[in-house]
Amino acid sequence: MFVWQSRVYWEDTDAGGIVYYANYLRFLERARSEWLRARGVSQRALAVDPGVVFSVFALELQYVRPARLDDLLAISCEPGALAGARLEFRQRVWRDGEQGELLLEASVHIACLDALSLKPRRLPVVIAEDPARSP
Amino acid sequence: MFVWQSRVYWEDTDAGGIVYYANYLRFLERARSEWLRARGVSQRALAVDPGVVFSVFALELQYVRPARLDDLLAISCEPGALAGARLEFRQRVWRDGEQGELLLEASVHIACLDALSLKPRRLPVVIAEDPARSP
Amino acid sequence: MFVWQSRVYWEDTDAGGIVYYANYLRFLERARSEWLRARGVSQRALAVDPGVVFSVFALELQYVRPARLDDLLAISCEPGALAGARLEFRQRVWRDGEQGELLLEASVHIACLDALSLKPRRLPVVIAEDPARSP
Amino acid sequence: MFVWQSRVYWEDTDAGGIVYYANYLRFLERARSEWLRARGVSQRALAVDPGVVFSVFALELQYVRPARLDDLLAISCEPGALAGARLEFRQRVWRDGEQGELLLEASVHIACLDALSLKPRRLPVVIAEDPARSP
Repeated sequence: MFVWQSRVYWEDTDAGGIVYYANYLRFLERARSEWLRARGVSQRALAVDPGVVFSVFALELQYVRPARLDDLLAISCEPGALAGARLEFRQRVWRDGEQGELLLEASVHIACLDALSLKPRRLPVVIAEDPARSP
Repeated sequence: MFVWQSRVYWEDTDAGGIVYYANYLRFLERARSEWLRARGVSQRALAVDPGVVFSVFALELQYVRPARLDDLLAISCEPGALAGARLEFRQRVWRDGEQGELLLEASVHIACLDALSLKPRRLPVVIAEDPARSP
Repeated sequence: MFVWQSRVYWEDTDAGGIVYYANYLRFLERARSEWLRARGVSQRALAVDPGVVFSVFALELQYVRPARLDDLLAISCEPGALAGARLEFRQRVWRDGEQGELLLEASVHIACLDALSLKPRRLPVVIAEDPARSP
Repeated sequence: MFVWQSRVYWEDTDAGGIVYYANYLRFLERARSEWLRARGVSQRALAVDPGVVFSVFALELQYVRPARLDDLLAISCEPGALAGARLEFRQRVWRDGEQGELLLEASVHIACLDALSLKPRRLPVVIAEDPARSP
């Protein structure tokens, strides 16, 4: 299971003293970007050759417990069902590593699009052939 | 149906030239805050008397079409099922008013919490007695 | 003097209970974008014809008093010195209108760039000929 | 010189394809928080004992070159003049380490405030006695 760590800073919190609900999506996206990078895939390079970009088209989130300033978060990225131009990730966020408290669970549905036309395109081979192998 | 308008600025967009996927949650929250304000409810006042805050505990989103810089968005806020300390909102986002293109659909599940203990509390009367009436 | 209004939402605040220091720059940019729009200038259109974009190259800020959740901010945008490809704005932020408490003062130095080469370009005529007239 | 590294993600960029001008302030704040953490100082602990918080009251920024998606930034944090309740930091941002391209220079003026009254307070000893020593 791919896990990425990220710290909670002032920018992530709100006046309730906890991480603002939209900002967990930034943590999730960092983990997905690092999952790609760990497989040797740069999104800037993919946009040029083979000319594809990724786009989230659906998202389900359960907020279990709040994260707070200075927390060190562990964010997982587990690829699941894959079909043509679509890929699903299950993602979770814990405080202090994946043995710590579970804070959030998410299902993220991604489409692979042509960088120019924004029409669906098959996933690049590097991702499609075996998304679940350890990068 | 309560609808709030908001403009897309540079801050909302990303290098893909469209609104960043997390930032739609900011637009949704603005509409929910304005729905409350239109009913005469200030969240700062509620936190003091009767001492409650609202917290999103689950969220489902469908991203239908992307919003772009300078778009004028219409964001709806439709209260649905209500039970004890919980309230559900259906929210949609359109470009150029609710006759325009549909960009996003969301179900937002909210809990009412005690401002100090963060334990569930009954919804304030002003919301609970008739969430669906026009504010 | 051009003044734009904007509300403070949860997204703007941090765990200190006040607006996060970076987020005032979003309010300032909204007011500059609306100053342009009030002069009939769309930044998306300018990027195509005559093919220019604006870029902040220097900024001075004085944070006078903090803004809080639910505050209604008034943000001014006053064009000043203009030279070739450069334009300076003085901007201020008040709580509850420009008769209210002063919260922030800023000098924003903007360059006009070619949208493709990102090299300096003369300001578009609609701005250069009389930046200080009321839009 | 204290230097902290941070990656540029989609969340940081705007439709111009570069990092949004307000978001550099988030990178600067991360480096200041890590400078404190490297000295054994937790901001959450400081807010309780001795009951102080830090607040930026002035800021000067020069944007030299734009950062882009996937860039790895190095952000320095160099304490300078110190007087009573005030501390100044010089901060710089480079692409690919402090031997790389300079992207931004900043002077950040910080006040130490009482966490409850928000009135000026002397800097905590751990910072005041020798802000410039390596943490």
